[in-house]
Amino acid sequence: MERILVTGASGYLGRYVLAALQGQGHEVNAVSTQAQVSQVGVSWEQGDLLQAGQAGRLMERVKPEALIHLAWYAKHGSFWTARENLAWPDATAHLIEVFHQSGGRRLVVAGTCAEYDWSQGYCVEDRTPTSPHTLYGKCKDATRQFTQAYCEANGLSYAWGRVFFPYGPGEPPARLLPSVLRSLQQDEPVRCSHGRQFRDFLHVSDVAAALVHLALGTDVSGVFNIASGQPVRLGTVVELCASHFQRPAPIQFGAISVPADDPPMLVGSADKLAATGWRPQVTLEESIASYARSYIDKGR
Amino acid sequence: MERILVTGASGYLGRYVLAALQGQGHEVNAVSTQAQVSQVGVSWEQGDLLQAGQAGRLMERVKPEALIHLAWYAKHGSFWTARENLAWPDATAHLIEVFHQSGGRRLVVAGTCAEYDWSQGYCVEDRTPTSPHTLYGKCKDATRQFTQAYCEANGLSYAWGRVFFPYGPGEPPARLLPSVLRSLQQDEPVRCSHGRQFRDFLHVSDVAAALVHLALGTDVSGVFNIASGQPVRLGTVVELCASHFQRPAPIQFGAISVPADDPPMLVGSADKLAATGWRPQVTLEESIASYARSYIDKGR
Repeated sequence: MERILVTGASGYLGRYVLAALQGQGHEVNAVSTQAQVSQVGVSWEQGDLLQAGQAGRLMERVKPEALIHLAWYAKHGSFWTARENLAWPDATAHLIEVFHQSGGRRLVVAGTCAEYDWSQGYCVEDRTPTSPHTLYGKCKDATRQFTQAYCEANGLSYAWGRVFFPYGPGEPPARLLPSVLRSLQQDEPVRCSHGRQFRDFLHVSDVAAALVHLALGTDVSGVFNIASGQPVRLGTVVELCASHFQRPAPIQFGAISVPADDPPMLVGSADKLAATGWRPQVTLEESIASYARSYIDKGR
Repeated sequence: MERILVTGASGYLGRYVLAALQGQGHEVNAVSTQAQVSQVGVSWEQGDLLQAGQAGRLMERVKPEALIHLAWYAKHGSFWTARENLAWPDATAHLIEVFHQSGGRRLVVAGTCAEYDWSQGYCVEDRTPTSPHTLYGKCKDATRQFTQAYCEANGLSYAWGRVFFPYGPGEPPARLLPSVLRSLQQDEPVRCSHGRQFRDFLHVSDVAAALVHLALGTDVSGVFNIASGQPVRLGTVVELCASHFQRPAPIQFGAISVPADDPPMLVGSADKLAATGWRPQVTLEESIASYARSYIDKGR
């Protein structure tokens, strides 16, 4: 049994991480600025890691052996440029320091594919350069550089998980899949970009399972893509969604323009993660089928 | 007359900025964690901008019209990777916000050539991509991105000055010129790298004058290199130093190895700054002559 602490526990990833930890016999502690979300067997701490002193007191109380740090500013649409990004590097560094000082053993931090140079297309850890263009990516990248240096200097076992494109129930309604499925459910034309971009989609439950695996299932230190490794065109995803509706409204590819610097491919190698023994549990086809079903049932 | 506030006032650049502001008829306010350094006509505030609430109270008291923000972690040798870098993006953002809220009109922030992609060699604002490799450069770059977005959204006039290689009396003794001059003064062989790298040297008094010019002499917003624009080989600088000694000890080029990624050229275009009407006042030859003279006199 491990004593584990999850930050950002009420967020999109956080809820799935708590679910993935359930029934595995660990002592699960969660911290969030929000009141407890419905989870059985979780010791919940309401607190704000951006407030001075909170992280230290939390670590003293909980003394976690493993830490999955997900907390960051994550509001859909605004997180790329939000000023709040500037507060999290320092807060994360402090959290890691007090985790280590209170006897922590294994650290997992949620990084992002936005750390990479997006002109590279296929992103391989320890080979593809980082060169983030967004404030979010820059702040995550700086935090990663500190985290690696700190963990290596202090002998702290760590994994930095670069998350690509999670999807699945609970995501913000303005993201691709919920907005496509809502249009289909309401029998409205599906307005899309040209749809030829390759992206790397991984179901949020598999993203969560990968984070838990990195925390409890391996001791290898380093940066790991949390990715499917499989390039999929956005258009294919939209068509997969539509295929589950009997008479789907038309898909209007090209109706939404993309920025000039929109990367034609943004896919992560999953080989390094796979080498630690982890495999995704659901395929894109299966999970879109059940995702679409939930909208079809709602529409009835 | 302008009411100006200088942060990081006791630092290497700060002292020269205060000197450059003297006798120009402005109301000069300075803030530093250190007790007042010797400066006539400066209103000194001892305080730590990393402490919550200090920046807000400072702005309420001083209500500066112009702000030259130099404060950052700058200890020679360790600043490239120091954990303290992570605290300054948030602290800088907060400082800028309270400056604007208290009626501030013109903002100047010290950036760095370390924001640039160093593989590019000759760095031109608004053209050469940023792609910092160091934690220092990453944190400055993230801060710049926020600063530009904030100033543009709020109509705050600003200049982000990317400082290249300042030199001159008062710099840390382990830097290139003091260590070369000390060796020459003590009649010891001068141990150097291969010396073929091009760098951009600007005397610290000219760097300070450029920062003051950006604060008070122009209203153009944007990023400005604070650079000479003139590529000079490190070896040339070392030989210039030696030329002022009667029988200089030998210069051992190649005695110090350079990292594999040491950039062969790191020079900033000075055209954009020059277009605002600013010119450097001292040449490299003149200032090295007087710098060397100060060591020769010490040695007597």
